[in-house]
Amino acid sequence: MNDHVQSGNGRNLDNAEWRAAIEDALDRPDSEPMFNLRDDGEGVYDTIFIGGGAAGRFGSAYLRAMGGRPLVIDRWPFLGGSCPHQACVPHHLFSEAAALLDRSRWFSGELFFPEFDESKASILALVELFRRGRGSAHAFMNWQTQSQLEVEFVLNAAAEVIDRNTVRAAGRTFHTEGLVIGLGAYQKPLTCPGADLAGVLDWATLIEELDYEPESCVIVGGGKVAVEYGSFFQSTGCQTTIVSRSPLLRTGSLHHVDEDIRRYLLDGMRLRGMTVLEGSGLVEIEGVDGRARRVRICDADGRERVLECDLVFNATGERPNSDEVVRTLGLQTGPNGEILVDARMQTNVEGVYAVGDVIGPPMEMFKARKCGMTAARNIAGDPFEFDFSEYPDFLHSTYEVTWVGLSEDEAREQFDDVTVIQMPPKGIEHEIPLPCAEGTMLYAFTRPELTGLLKCVIDGSSRRVLGFHHIGYGAKDAFQYLDYLLRRPEGLTIDELGEMNELFLNPEHFIQLSRLRAGRRELVDL
Amino acid sequence: MNDHVQSGNGRNLDNAEWRAAIEDALDRPDSEPMFNLRDDGEGVYDTIFIGGGAAGRFGSAYLRAMGGRPLVIDRWPFLGGSCPHQACVPHHLFSEAAALLDRSRWFSGELFFPEFDESKASILALVELFRRGRGSAHAFMNWQTQSQLEVEFVLNAAAEVIDRNTVRAAGRTFHTEGLVIGLGAYQKPLTCPGADLAGVLDWATLIEELDYEPESCVIVGGGKVAVEYGSFFQSTGCQTTIVSRSPLLRTGSLHHVDEDIRRYLLDGMRLRGMTVLEGSGLVEIEGVDGRARRVRICDADGRERVLECDLVFNATGERPNSDEVVRTLGLQTGPNGEILVDARMQTNVEGVYAVGDVIGPPMEMFKARKCGMTAARNIAGDPFEFDFSEYPDFLHSTYEVTWVGLSEDEAREQFDDVTVIQMPPKGIEHEIPLPCAEGTMLYAFTRPELTGLLKCVIDGSSRRVLGFHHIGYGAKDAFQYLDYLLRRPEGLTIDELGEMNELFLNPEHFIQLSRLRAGRRELVDL
Repeated sequence: MNDHVQSGNGRNLDNAEWRAAIEDALDRPDSEPMFNLRDDGEGVYDTIFIGGGAAGRFGSAYLRAMGGRPLVIDRWPFLGGSCPHQACVPHHLFSEAAALLDRSRWFSGELFFPEFDESKASILALVELFRRGRGSAHAFMNWQTQSQLEVEFVLNAAAEVIDRNTVRAAGRTFHTEGLVIGLGAYQKPLTCPGADLAGVLDWATLIEELDYEPESCVIVGGGKVAVEYGSFFQSTGCQTTIVSRSPLLRTGSLHHVDEDIRRYLLDGMRLRGMTVLEGSGLVEIEGVDGRARRVRICDADGRERVLECDLVFNATGERPNSDEVVRTLGLQTGPNGEILVDARMQTNVEGVYAVGDVIGPPMEMFKARKCGMTAARNIAGDPFEFDFSEYPDFLHSTYEVTWVGLSEDEAREQFDDVTVIQMPPKGIEHEIPLPCAEGTMLYAFTRPELTGLLKCVIDGSSRRVLGFHHIGYGAKDAFQYLDYLLRRPEGLTIDELGEMNELFLNPEHFIQLSRLRAGRRELVDL
Repeated sequence: MNDHVQSGNGRNLDNAEWRAAIEDALDRPDSEPMFNLRDDGEGVYDTIFIGGGAAGRFGSAYLRAMGGRPLVIDRWPFLGGSCPHQACVPHHLFSEAAALLDRSRWFSGELFFPEFDESKASILALVELFRRGRGSAHAFMNWQTQSQLEVEFVLNAAAEVIDRNTVRAAGRTFHTEGLVIGLGAYQKPLTCPGADLAGVLDWATLIEELDYEPESCVIVGGGKVAVEYGSFFQSTGCQTTIVSRSPLLRTGSLHHVDEDIRRYLLDGMRLRGMTVLEGSGLVEIEGVDGRARRVRICDADGRERVLECDLVFNATGERPNSDEVVRTLGLQTGPNGEILVDARMQTNVEGVYAVGDVIGPPMEMFKARKCGMTAARNIAGDPFEFDFSEYPDFLHSTYEVTWVGLSEDEAREQFDDVTVIQMPPKGIEHEIPLPCAEGTMLYAFTRPELTGLLKCVIDGSSRRVLGFHHIGYGAKDAFQYLDYLLRRPEGLTIDELGEMNELFLNPEHFIQLSRLRAGRRELVDL
């Protein structure tokens, strides 16, 4: 047991102490469990959260805030799960680097930008930066959960679920009224020959294992992860090819991607030197001395092609981490192993809830956290349902791409009278330096075709907005609230938008563009 | 008369043609007026907009959309006013450069950043970039107003108001039912000795006149413009001192600036080498060979100090451009020359409205445009009132600073039970790499103290949010919608926030932080 974090010592750890404890635990295979327990963990918990990732951490915090007594158990020595360790946080770090590198290339030798030196743009250096620094986010999660949220936890210890009222961890037995399963998901491995060669990585193993500088990469997959990591790799000078069975961003787990936005994104990736092979499938990875060196694919015309590379990046999607607990508890699952739950996150077993990635897509942060909250409220006797069939969505290329609601094509299928307000206007896309705001001002004055694209799709008869779409910078945050406004029973009309207060220059220009048309009884495009 | 834009030729100009026409007009003092008139401008207009800046352009577009017949007259050869010519747009360009230069300095020689070369960071080069490029925004405004919004206008011609039904411009007489005055504002000149020396500039004359590279600057004023231009100048290596009578950002025209945010901003400016002298006043500017070379000020202790500089930047605020039209029409004005209007933008003279900066502060884009819309709706018989006493606000340093609603101190004065949710938490500000999202990821992993500060101020008894505050990057756009949500009759509660869908990593973390506390019946700080 780790005395420093044990209950009863009268003092919580500060952030620096947590960081040292976590890094020590990660470094030593035999490191001790960490206990943060009231009453030494005796008595019966209201619920035990199996897994302390986003869903478990937010769920337990919510239940504790409501006066309940949750316990969180995680095999890692930190709370927060894969997000700050291997997933969202490094992806954001890499995407920020990609946007900066992209700008440095476009402006090489112009204005205050020096000649771009590709030799300094290193994937490995950024992975190492992340590895060195991730401990501070881990420490904060533990500190906040212990000192601000007052949640009990056992870390650095695998939970063994005995039954729905009994969990063993770190050599001890904990008693509980019920369980919340939040075990997350893992990258589905490639299954073709050569999938186990060195240099075949994914978002998790990239962080843990990369020890060389990749010079050329083949990415397998056509969703967000493929675009995000591909854009990052390419921005560093690592020649990148995306091999995708579906058209890019037309995979099953993504909805509402507008075709004009997709086209702008895809054109931009190709403009920056990336190769995107849609309708193509991976056949085999070939190695030299145990390392991946080339990839055989079957292209859209059915021909075999060989791509040289020293990194194969698997972006084919994730699978829920559900096997063991499903067997023990007799939980019902869907075709991909996702635990089936109702809108209250209740599984088929009374008293057992499941939350986050383990219940299947969308494997997004908001869903994980709100699943946790939903389970907590129902456990605490506050009936609450969570429908995540509609939500705002986002990805990075070297741009930020954000959308909510219907795409233009979807809207035209469902409504007779669709009005589109967009910038730049259709037909003069490359001529004018709009949209522009923070992040695209320099482009506006030098390369107007790089300033992005935005679109607002409206039902002319009800005057209600059906969808918002943006590629550029700085609009992501707004879409959280646009989502809320769109999903109100009364929706959001062009008239209400036109009466709002814009903060000019606002990255998405929806308010002022709406105002230019809202005076018309019969709406027309802009 | 310019045939290319005259009505009756059967074709509107495209963007490139507009740009050429505008640049030609700006280059030649004797350039001809530009007419875009239906029926050759015969008949009686519903209203004539005197001034085609933001207020006039949006007002005329709204009236036209409602089916009315407006005419816009402006002395410049383009619509849009000072914003794309001298004010908001260059300020945004310079602030983007400032943020990039700031980052390049912090990361000089680290990761993929080269050694920072201050000799390439040039104010003059960025001013010249703006001068060369501004014509494309001008062209777009004219193109959009002519081809998409179908508004009639006369440009490159001063309007002479004869009476409220008669306006002369470009040698012609136009008849109208009424007028909308949108003549904007001008920088109040300094009045001390030496104010007319070369090298004494403001936001307008900087663009028009700068022809050397400033090495050291004294800024006079303590509001947004002082912070914004000061941060830009300093970021280029131009040693900058701000001389302000009031504490910075505690000037009369700004409200709700939170003290913690102000302190973070001010500490950051000083950390970057700027000098800020509060409680100090300008006494005299001294010149050598007709150029400003030093400034005498009276400091907070009443002592005279001398500051060497080669640029004096006047950021003391603006005055409405109202004199001539006020005299002609007998309009009532306030103490600073602002035309007095009611909530419908109606002046004391029946049928005469006034909009935008000419009615006084806040001299902000949303207000100008919405004033225009308000006047248009009332003119068209749709009674509409616009109260701009509360609104979301924004400024740039090398950061983006955004706020809406009450500051923490204001909230504590008005409410008994105030809860504050903030990141980083009070007391550990410099230890943890939060908040972070786009724009602060690299800082989070290297210099956590640079990632910004955010704060949500809540009334514990009603659970309603009273104010949101953010310094960092990427949150500006969200505040437009937070403003709308806060100002609903029912307001916005911590509970509603906690049930929204965040787009993680969201630059302001308001949704998820609210969710961590919303479970509690008695709210506590986070």
